[in-house]
Amino acid sequence: MFKRFCGAAAAKEMLLDRCLPIERTQFIPSVQAESRVISQEIRSPVSLPGFDRAAMDGFAVRFADTKGARPHAPVFLDKFQPVRTGMPVPGEYDAVMMLEDARLRESTLEITAQLHAYRNVSRTGEDILQGETVFSQGHTLRPPDVALLSALGIGEVQVYEKPKVVIIPTGGELVAIGSRALCPGEAYEINGLMARLYAQRWGALAEKIDIVSDDEGLIREAISANLHADLIIIIGGTSVGEKDYAPRVLSEMGELMVHGVRLQPGKPTAFGVVAGKPVVCLPGYPVAALFDLYLFVRPAVQKIARRRDALPKVSARLARKIPSRPGYLSLVRVALKDGQAEPIMISGAGILSSVARADGFVVVPEEQEGLEAGENVEVMLFE
Amino acid sequence: MFKRFCGAAAAKEMLLDRCLPIERTQFIPSVQAESRVISQEIRSPVSLPGFDRAAMDGFAVRFADTKGARPHAPVFLDKFQPVRTGMPVPGEYDAVMMLEDARLRESTLEITAQLHAYRNVSRTGEDILQGETVFSQGHTLRPPDVALLSALGIGEVQVYEKPKVVIIPTGGELVAIGSRALCPGEAYEINGLMARLYAQRWGALAEKIDIVSDDEGLIREAISANLHADLIIIIGGTSVGEKDYAPRVLSEMGELMVHGVRLQPGKPTAFGVVAGKPVVCLPGYPVAALFDLYLFVRPAVQKIARRRDALPKVSARLARKIPSRPGYLSLVRVALKDGQAEPIMISGAGILSSVARADGFVVVPEEQEGLEAGENVEVMLFE
Repeated sequence: MFKRFCGAAAAKEMLLDRCLPIERTQFIPSVQAESRVISQEIRSPVSLPGFDRAAMDGFAVRFADTKGARPHAPVFLDKFQPVRTGMPVPGEYDAVMMLEDARLRESTLEITAQLHAYRNVSRTGEDILQGETVFSQGHTLRPPDVALLSALGIGEVQVYEKPKVVIIPTGGELVAIGSRALCPGEAYEINGLMARLYAQRWGALAEKIDIVSDDEGLIREAISANLHADLIIIIGGTSVGEKDYAPRVLSEMGELMVHGVRLQPGKPTAFGVVAGKPVVCLPGYPVAALFDLYLFVRPAVQKIARRRDALPKVSARLARKIPSRPGYLSLVRVALKDGQAEPIMISGAGILSSVARADGFVVVPEEQEGLEAGENVEVMLFE
Repeated sequence: MFKRFCGAAAAKEMLLDRCLPIERTQFIPSVQAESRVISQEIRSPVSLPGFDRAAMDGFAVRFADTKGARPHAPVFLDKFQPVRTGMPVPGEYDAVMMLEDARLRESTLEITAQLHAYRNVSRTGEDILQGETVFSQGHTLRPPDVALLSALGIGEVQVYEKPKVVIIPTGGELVAIGSRALCPGEAYEINGLMARLYAQRWGALAEKIDIVSDDEGLIREAISANLHADLIIIIGGTSVGEKDYAPRVLSEMGELMVHGVRLQPGKPTAFGVVAGKPVVCLPGYPVAALFDLYLFVRPAVQKIARRRDALPKVSARLARKIPSRPGYLSLVRVALKDGQAEPIMISGAGILSSVARADGFVVVPEEQEGLEAGENVEVMLFE
């Protein structure tokens, strides 16, 4: 009944093929540019240091004058100047004698060490030369990078815009969080919230629109109204029941590339493209939606955002056997305890409480029938 | 000349001993509680699901009526009711027949599968029972946890406040970023910015005050005025020169526990306590300050914030030999390329451009004299 059924890796590739790295750029103040991606190579407008700089507290001297100075054979200088770390070394000097090796005797300096040229001096441009490339296009700015831009006096940077992700929750039984008490058969719409928080964390500007009923026309309208987005996420209505409109709407409005993924949990997943924009349909079961977010939405958002943050993970020994369905990629929640990964064996894809107890998940490849107790596994940590 | 010189591990322990997990709490809306730490065990006010819920689209039936039904021996029911995934299963039924195994023939349902009790039904409280513990004290809320709170109708949570970190940049040669052009001998104050960005990322509310000159009285005043903070970071003036006031002020105002750490770079580091508040003095050299932030400030902020996020890291093969000073913990910047870690061999602790090119750093333990080319190393990634 799933008409475009495929494996998880193929599904991901088809989705990512349609996710294009963002081209829009904007200028922002450098001090606000942490985590942003640079859209143009940055060259330094100045040399750093901009002058020969003392690298130690001590005395600026001419290195040639220090020849032969040793602890038991001091040399006495009358040409020198006290300097502090970071201060300019005057042009007539070319080395800095550290305090420990010098003693000031009125207007004479007794020194007990010989220096070579530019010892304890940070030379002009030693860190960065004017015109040198500081950051290449595509670099993601971390705090020390922001500090470096500021050190160079670069007040504004051109960065890629954050991708816009619009989340469309669907389902007639859903009620907006906190809006009113639930009647029997109703549930709060929480998958959209989860998707929004993750999309933001992964580098997007995410917006969740109001809940859309299970109505083909309304779902179509919601997609049409949000084609300004770089990625659309529809939640719910992705299976093969009579009210599972989302995949049908995609195939009518554009192209339905994937419907049904050999993934457990997460089988009722669909990907399509409408007016060039990738659309991801996530199942309404929270745990399935969560795994889809990690497996598909995270790489999609990161590709569009031009980011490549690795998923945090740790190694652990599997405390118990994990069964899995052959041919399906299985994702198993685990809790970490004393270096062991304890599988949380609750089958229900709706069981969010199991995620509350889980530290992360283990991936069982399609070709394997489960994993044995005692195996070393990589645990992907929930962010 | 360093009067409280000690190894990096001992220094860290002395600092962390004086960092107390925060006790102040606040109530905030659940939907804004991502990354916050719960200060009180949370029990569920409701059962989830709140009713026996269909786990499949299909037909609610009595399981006893399905006995013997098989593909070639269908059973015909006249007591059943269509249900959709997530909808209540009416009280007179106790299983859900999936669509694939049923065919509706006017008012009769032809079924071809036998069900056991509660097959395809999510039972009341299956996910969470009313009164059950959902999160323990100290749990850090991730997006699915926020979703779970919302699913349970918990609109507000009590969380620990974020620690307050005050950053005091010192140095007469420093100029506030972007405030004016530099004169010779001046530099923009960038370490405070870097410390603020990292402290925020690690879970603190961080504030950087105006630059304080190298003046004992002014540094003293700045500390006194900020003892409301949970952690004070002073930057600059930590060495043993005449203007290195910070450690002296600490020993006069309170206790100086550490001055000088066997750490390369980062030797001129000091830790103290004033009026019960931990004070960290970082060297003014940006790379040394950066490593101090990672080695000492990160665990300090996380201990106070009650968070335990692991440092992101990857394994790599060392592309070249790293020399190191025996007896000193050495931190070496590396760039990652094709699974190899390439050391960036620039000695200067002031060389921020080397960090721009680095993906992370490798730690060489005190007892080792460097690391050999080809060794497998753990690379801590700069966040």
